Amino acid sequence: MRGQLTINLKALQDNYKHLDSLSDAQCETAAVVKANAYGLGIGKVAPALYDAGARRFFVATLEEGAQLREILSEVRIYILNGFSQEKSNTYASHNLIPVLNSAQEIAAYQSAGGGAAVLHFDTGMNRLGIPYNQMPMDLNGLDIYYVMTHLSSSEQSHNRNNAVQLQRFMPIMHRFPDRMISIANSGGILLGRDYHMGLTRPGIALYGGMEGMQPVISLTVPVLQTRKATNGQSAGYNETYTFDKETTLAVVGAGYADGLPRTLSNKGALYWKGHRLPIRGNVSMDSIICDLSDVPEKDYPVAGDRVEVIGENQSLSALANDAGTITYEILTSLGARYERTWVS
Amino acid sequence: MRGQLTINLKALQDNYKHLDSLSDAQCETAAVVKANAYGLGIGKVAPALYDAGARRFFVATLEEGAQLREILSEVRIYILNGFSQEKSNTYASHNLIPVLNSAQEIAAYQSAGGGAAVLHFDTGMNRLGIPYNQMPMDLNGLDIYYVMTHLSSSEQSHNRNNAVQLQRFMPIMHRFPDRMISIANSGGILLGRDYHMGLTRPGIALYGGMEGMQPVISLTVPVLQTRKATNGQSAGYNETYTFDKETTLAVVGAGYADGLPRTLSNKGALYWKGHRLPIRGNVSMDSIICDLSDVPEKDYPVAGDRVEVIGENQSLSALANDAGTITYEILTSLGARYERTWVS
Repeated sequence: MRGQLTINLKALQDNYKHLDSLSDAQCETAAVVKANAYGLGIGKVAPALYDAGARRFFVATLEEGAQLREILSEVRIYILNGFSQEKSNTYASHNLIPVLNSAQEIAAYQSAGGGAAVLHFDTGMNRLGIPYNQMPMDLNGLDIYYVMTHLSSSEQSHNRNNAVQLQRFMPIMHRFPDRMISIANSGGILLGRDYHMGLTRPGIALYGGMEGMQPVISLTVPVLQTRKATNGQSAGYNETYTFDKETTLAVVGAGYADGLPRTLSNKGALYWKGHRLPIRGNVSMDSIICDLSDVPEKDYPVAGDRVEVIGENQSLSALANDAGTITYEILTSLGARYERTWVS
Repeated sequence: MRGQLTINLKALQDNYKHLDSLSDAQCETAAVVKANAYGLGIGKVAPALYDAGARRFFVATLEEGAQLREILSEVRIYILNGFSQEKSNTYASHNLIPVLNSAQEIAAYQSAGGGAAVLHFDTGMNRLGIPYNQMPMDLNGLDIYYVMTHLSSSEQSHNRNNAVQLQRFMPIMHRFPDRMISIANSGGILLGRDYHMGLTRPGIALYGGMEGMQPVISLTVPVLQTRKATNGQSAGYNETYTFDKETTLAVVGAGYADGLPRTLSNKGALYWKGHRLPIRGNVSMDSIICDLSDVPEKDYPVAGDRVEVIGENQSLSALANDAGTITYEILTSLGARYERTWVS
C-alpha cells in the first residue's frame, strides 16, 4: 500500500503552451527542469516539454545537465550553477552551456577553452551573477548565447523591486545590443512584455505551483486503519493534540519521510469524499493521524482506501500554505516511496 | 560540484553495539531501517548492522521489507505498517512478518492463512496498534513472535507518559506470559531495564540523531562563488535580509531541493575552518547564501571549496534545531543530488 503520485503530463504541456502564449512569437520559452524537474521526474517531464515545443532547458548542476543530455540529444542545456573547473570537460563532451555567474568563472571558462555561454548579471539577489555595476572587460573566447538576470520577487506583481531590477539591467542590455536577453522566470512572464525579451524561463508555473496554472500533480495516500480515540486521549508523538470528545480517526501510511512536512502537524488536512480530515498530533515519519469527525459514519474510509493529499479538494498551494512553505519545497521534497504514474 | 554526504558505517555499528550493551544479554537489539534506513541507504546500512550483530529488522512498508529481503536473506523482517490485503502473498513469498495493528488486520491475516506475526498494542499514541483495553479474542492461526507497544515520549526521560504507557501495557504482558515483549524504541532503551524486556527497537539513535551517540553522517557543500554585498543591499528571494555593512558572502550549491529546509532561512549557518557562516536571506532550491564576516579575509573560501553543513562544528541535532525540526526529518529529507560515500 503506497501513496500514489500522479503527474499529468498533458497539464504540464498545457501550462508550457499557455506560458509561451503570454509572450510574443519572437520570444522563446525555455523550461527549467532542475532538481529532477522539481521532483516530478526529468526522464518523463523533459520529453513531454520537448513535445510541447521547448528547445532550451535550464538545470542547476552539471550532473543534471549530463543526465538531461542522455534524455534529449537535440536541445540546448544551460547550467545555472555555472562553470565548474573540477569537471570542465563535461561541458564540451555533453554539449552543455554554462551560465557564467562571476568574472572568475568567465576567466576559468576562458582558460578551459571558452565557447558557448550565458552571462548572468545579478541585479538584486546577491546570490549568483556578475554584479550589475561591474561589467567584465574581457569576454574573449566566449560565444554569448544569452545575457540574463534573475528577479527576486517576480511573483509579487506590485513589488517595486521588479522595476528596480529591470532598471539596473538596462545598461547591460544596451552593452549587448546584438545578444538575446532573458529576464523572466515564471512570475516575470506575468509582469508583462518589458520582462519577456528574447527568452523566458518558467519553472514552478510549468508544474502547477503558481496560481492560474493547471494542476499537474495529484497525491493520495492509503488508510492503514481507522480507530476511535476517547475524550481526553492524545494523538501521536509527544501528545500535542488532546481530544475533547470521542473521535474517529484514520491513520494513513505516509509521513515526513514521504515529504509531507512535520510542519503540517496539527495544521494541515487530508480529504475524503470532499470532507476535510484535519491532521491531529505530530506528523510521524511514516504515518499521519487525521480526524474523521466531518465524515458521516456511513462514509468512513476503511483500510486500503486512498485519501487525498493533493487533488480536487486541496491544491498544492493550499498544502504548502498549511505547511508554512512554498509550492517549490513541497514539490522537490516528494518522497521516493510513492508509486509515480505519469499520464498524458 | 556536488555536496558530499559521508556515512560512517563504523560509527553506526558502534552505536548499535553501544545500544545493545545497555540492555541485558537475554534482551535482543533489533534495528529499525525504515525510510531507506532513515535516508542513509538501506543497501549499505542493513549489512553493516548485520555485521554488528543485528538479526531482527523493522521497516515501515511491505515494499521496504521486500527490498530488504533481497539484501539480507537470513534475518527476521517486521513490517510496522501492518498487513495489507492488497499484496497479501508478498509476506509469505519474501518471508516478511506483519506487525498486526488492529483486530481487523488480525482477521485479514487469518483469512489469508495466518502465520508469523507481531501483535502491536497502542498504549497512548492513537496511531497504530490494537487499543490496550481491547484484547482481541481470536488469535487462531497466528504464530506470535512478539507482543509490542510504542512509546510516545521516550526521549523525555521524565515524561510521566512513559510510566503510564508501561502501566497500560502490563495486563497485556501478563496475557502473553510465554511471548517475547518489545517496548523500547531508541529513547526507551535509556529509560532502563523496565522498558527493555525481550527486544529493543532502536532507530534514530543508530544514526546518530540522539544525544550521546556517535555522529554517523557528515555533509559538505561546494562554494559556487564568493561576492561582496554593499551596505543596504539585500540577499535572496523576497529580500528578507538587508546588509547593514559591506559584507562578503559565499554562495553554496545546495538548497531545499537537497533537504536543507527553507526554515533555515536567516536562521541556520554553515561552517568553514571553524568559523560560523550565518545563512542570509531565504534558502533557495539549489543554493544558499552565507555570510563570511567571521572569517579572516586571508582564510576566505574560494569557488570549489567545501563548507560544512554537518560535521565537527555543527551536529545533526544543531542543524535540526535551527530548522525548527527534529533530526529524523533532516535525515529522511537528505537529497538525491549528494555524492554519498559510505566509510567503514
